[in-house]
Amino acid sequence: MCGTDSPASINKGSLTSANGNRTRSPTCSSDRVLNLEQGDPSVFQSYWSKMEDKCAMVISGSQLMSYISDFTTLCWFMEPEFQEAVRRLHRVVGNAVVDDRYIVVGTGSTQLYQAALYALTSPGGPEPVSVVSAAPYYSAYPEETDYLRSRLYKWAGDAYEFDKNGTGPYIEVVNSPNNPDGTLREAVVKNRGDEGKLIHDLAYYWPQYTPIIRPADHDIMTFTFSKSTGHAGSRIGWAVVKDKEVARKMSKFIEMSTLGVSKDSQQRAAKIMGVICDGYKNFKSDELFFEHIRRVMAERWERLRQVVERNQVFSLPKYPKQYCLFSGELIEPYPGFAWLEAKEEEIDSQKVLRGCIKVQGRTGSRFGVAQKYVRVSLLSNEEVFNQFLERLSTIKSVSNGH
Amino acid sequence: MCGTDSPASINKGSLTSANGNRTRSPTCSSDRVLNLEQGDPSVFQSYWSKMEDKCAMVISGSQLMSYISDFTTLCWFMEPEFQEAVRRLHRVVGNAVVDDRYIVVGTGSTQLYQAALYALTSPGGPEPVSVVSAAPYYSAYPEETDYLRSRLYKWAGDAYEFDKNGTGPYIEVVNSPNNPDGTLREAVVKNRGDEGKLIHDLAYYWPQYTPIIRPADHDIMTFTFSKSTGHAGSRIGWAVVKDKEVARKMSKFIEMSTLGVSKDSQQRAAKIMGVICDGYKNFKSDELFFEHIRRVMAERWERLRQVVERNQVFSLPKYPKQYCLFSGELIEPYPGFAWLEAKEEEIDSQKVLRGCIKVQGRTGSRFGVAQKYVRVSLLSNEEVFNQFLERLSTIKSVSNGH
Repeated sequence: MCGTDSPASINKGSLTSANGNRTRSPTCSSDRVLNLEQGDPSVFQSYWSKMEDKCAMVISGSQLMSYISDFTTLCWFMEPEFQEAVRRLHRVVGNAVVDDRYIVVGTGSTQLYQAALYALTSPGGPEPVSVVSAAPYYSAYPEETDYLRSRLYKWAGDAYEFDKNGTGPYIEVVNSPNNPDGTLREAVVKNRGDEGKLIHDLAYYWPQYTPIIRPADHDIMTFTFSKSTGHAGSRIGWAVVKDKEVARKMSKFIEMSTLGVSKDSQQRAAKIMGVICDGYKNFKSDELFFEHIRRVMAERWERLRQVVERNQVFSLPKYPKQYCLFSGELIEPYPGFAWLEAKEEEIDSQKVLRGCIKVQGRTGSRFGVAQKYVRVSLLSNEEVFNQFLERLSTIKSVSNGH
Repeated sequence: MCGTDSPASINKGSLTSANGNRTRSPTCSSDRVLNLEQGDPSVFQSYWSKMEDKCAMVISGSQLMSYISDFTTLCWFMEPEFQEAVRRLHRVVGNAVVDDRYIVVGTGSTQLYQAALYALTSPGGPEPVSVVSAAPYYSAYPEETDYLRSRLYKWAGDAYEFDKNGTGPYIEVVNSPNNPDGTLREAVVKNRGDEGKLIHDLAYYWPQYTPIIRPADHDIMTFTFSKSTGHAGSRIGWAVVKDKEVARKMSKFIEMSTLGVSKDSQQRAAKIMGVICDGYKNFKSDELFFEHIRRVMAERWERLRQVVERNQVFSLPKYPKQYCLFSGELIEPYPGFAWLEAKEEEIDSQKVLRGCIKVQGRTGSRFGVAQKYVRVSLLSNEEVFNQFLERLSTIKSVSNGH
C-alpha cells in the first residue's frame, strides 16, 4: 500500500484509497522527504540577505537587561521602539487601524491567541466558554485552546456547526486570510446578542499574500513578525486592541505566562520594520519589501497552478481579484500555503504526497475537514520549492493502475 | 494612619498597627518611591558595561529566521550553541549535573515552571494534582499555577501543611536558595510513595548568592539567565531534566505555548555565558564574573546588616557559613533579597516601608506568611541601593510615639 506515513514502507507505485479500494495510481519519484508541513518562512531570506548592512543589529553586553520597558504603560514589558515601529508599519501598509488602539507585544501570535482567550473569559462561569472557528480552521487552534484543560474556555470546533447547533457564550476566531485555504473571511456565527466575542487572527493580512481591501478595525487583531517579514525565529507577535481592559488582561496573561517578551527580539523587530518603512519613505531600495515578496509569491503560484492543472490529481482554490489599497491595483491573493484538494473523494492527500513523492504536507483532518485536502507550505526557499514542483509534476493520475 | 499603599495619603509620623493599637512609631524620610518589589537585576549592569567589547552581539537581517533549530532533537527550537553554553557553564560552576541530562530552553524559568507542571500531570485524572511549596514560597507560584483554572493541577499552598493534612498526588516545588528568604532547602513532604513529584527551582543556585554545596542532581531543575548573569530582558531560562519523556512533554508545552523561544536571545545568552566561561579558562579578566558580583553582594549585605541592627525595627535571617565547592572556601550566603521581619508581631512591614520611607517591598502575605515580613530587592543599581540604606537608617523605633 502506497501512502503510509512511515518513510520505510513507501511503495512506489499503486495507490490504495482509505477505504481499501484500488483507485487511479499516481506515478512516483524518489528522494529525501521535503518537509512542507510547517510554514517556515524561508522565502523571505534572500531579500534580507541583500539588506544585511541596513538590518544588522548590535546588542552590547549591558543593554536590554531589565524586565521592565516602561512601568507607566499598561504593557510594561513592551519596548517603546517596538510599539512605535508597529504603528508605523501599519500606517505605511494601511492594513489595520492603530490610532487610539492599544498595542500588546507577545511571544509570537501563538501566545497572543491564548492571551486573548484569557482576556475574553472570566473565572467562575458555570461552563467553559466555547471557542470556534470556521472549518477549515488553523490546525493549532484546537490544541492551543485545550492543552491545559482550562475551566475558562474549551475548543468547540467548526463555527458553522456552532452557528447551527451551538448554545451559550462563545469566542469565534476569524483567521483572514485563512490558514490553510487563503480565503478572506468574516465571522460566521450570527445573531447571538452579547454572547459572542471575536478574535481576528490577521497573521497573513499583508500585501505579499492578499489584496489589502480595507484597514482592518476589529476588537482584537493579532499579527506576527513570522509571517509579515519572515522572522519566525524571533518569536514576536503583537495585538491591536480597542478595549483598555482587554489589553490590560492580555498583558497580565503574558506577565504570568512568560514575565514579558524578549527585548532583544523586540528591538530587532523594530529595526527591521523600520528598514521596511524607510524603504517606502525614500523609495531608494532596488525593490521594496512587499513588492519583492509578492512578486516571488506570484511566480510560485503561477508555476504551481500550471503543474496542478497538468497532472489532474488535485485542484487549487480560485481566488477573486480585488482592489488593493496598498498597491492601488486589482490583484489576486497569493497565499502562503497551497490548499490542495484531491479530485477523487476517497483519496488521503497527505498520504499520497508523502508516500509517492516524499513531500510532507498536513492533512485536511487536522483542519477539521476531509483527508482529500492537504496543506503544503509555499514559503520554503527557492531550491525546496523547485524540488516540490518537480516532484508534484511526477504525480499523474493513470486509470486502471500502474 | 501611616503605612497605606497610596502615596497620596502617606502620613509621616506615628505608626498604627494592623489591629488599630498605637505601637512604637518609626520616624520617616520623604522622597520618591523606590520600587524594590521586583527583583530587577540592575546590580549586574556595571560588570557588563566593562565587558562591552567581548559581549557585543551582531545579528544580521537574514540570520535566525527559522522556527526550527534542529528538528532531529527533542527540543527542536533550541539553538545548539545555547545548549552547549549551558552545559559548559554548569561544568565551570559545578552547580548542577548535566552529563546524560536533557536541556530544555524556555522563555524564562516562568515558562519552564508551567512546562514542568504540564509534563508531570496527565489529562483524565479525577482531581487536579496539588502543587505545593514550603512557606514562605515564591509569590508567583500560586498565580502561575492557577490563572488558567487548569483541570490538570491546582495550587494547594504551603508544603508543610500538605505534609500534615494533604492527600492524593502532588507536585512539590523546591526553591533553593529560596526566594524570598535565601535558605537552602530540601523537599518537605515525606513518605508518599509514588504520589509525589518534585520540581527544583534553582534560579539562585549560583556562587554570587550562595555556597555551591554540591552539584545539584534532581529530576527537573530550572535555571534562568535573569538571575545567573542578570539579563532579565532576554527572557531565557533552561531546565535540566533526567527523564526523556518529561523533557519531551516540557518541549511540547513550550511549542504549544509560544512555538519556541527567541533565537536572538538564545544566541545572546550563549555568547554571554561563553564570555564568563572563557574568563575562568584564561584568568585574564580584571575580576571574574561570579567573584565580582559576590563581592558586591557581600558589601551590600554587610552594610545592610549594620543598618538593620542599628535601627532595631527589623531583623534579618542569619545564614550558616558552608563550604563552597566553586570557591574552595567557607562562605556565607548573600541572597538577592532582604527578608525583613519586624520585631513587633503586629506590624505590617510592607506598609511601614512604603508609608514611612517610600520603599516598595512585597508583603509576607504574598509568600504565604505573616505581614510582619517584607521582601526587598538587593539587586538594584548602586545608587538605588544606597538610597534604600539611607532611608532605612531613618526608621528608628521610638517608644511612646513620635
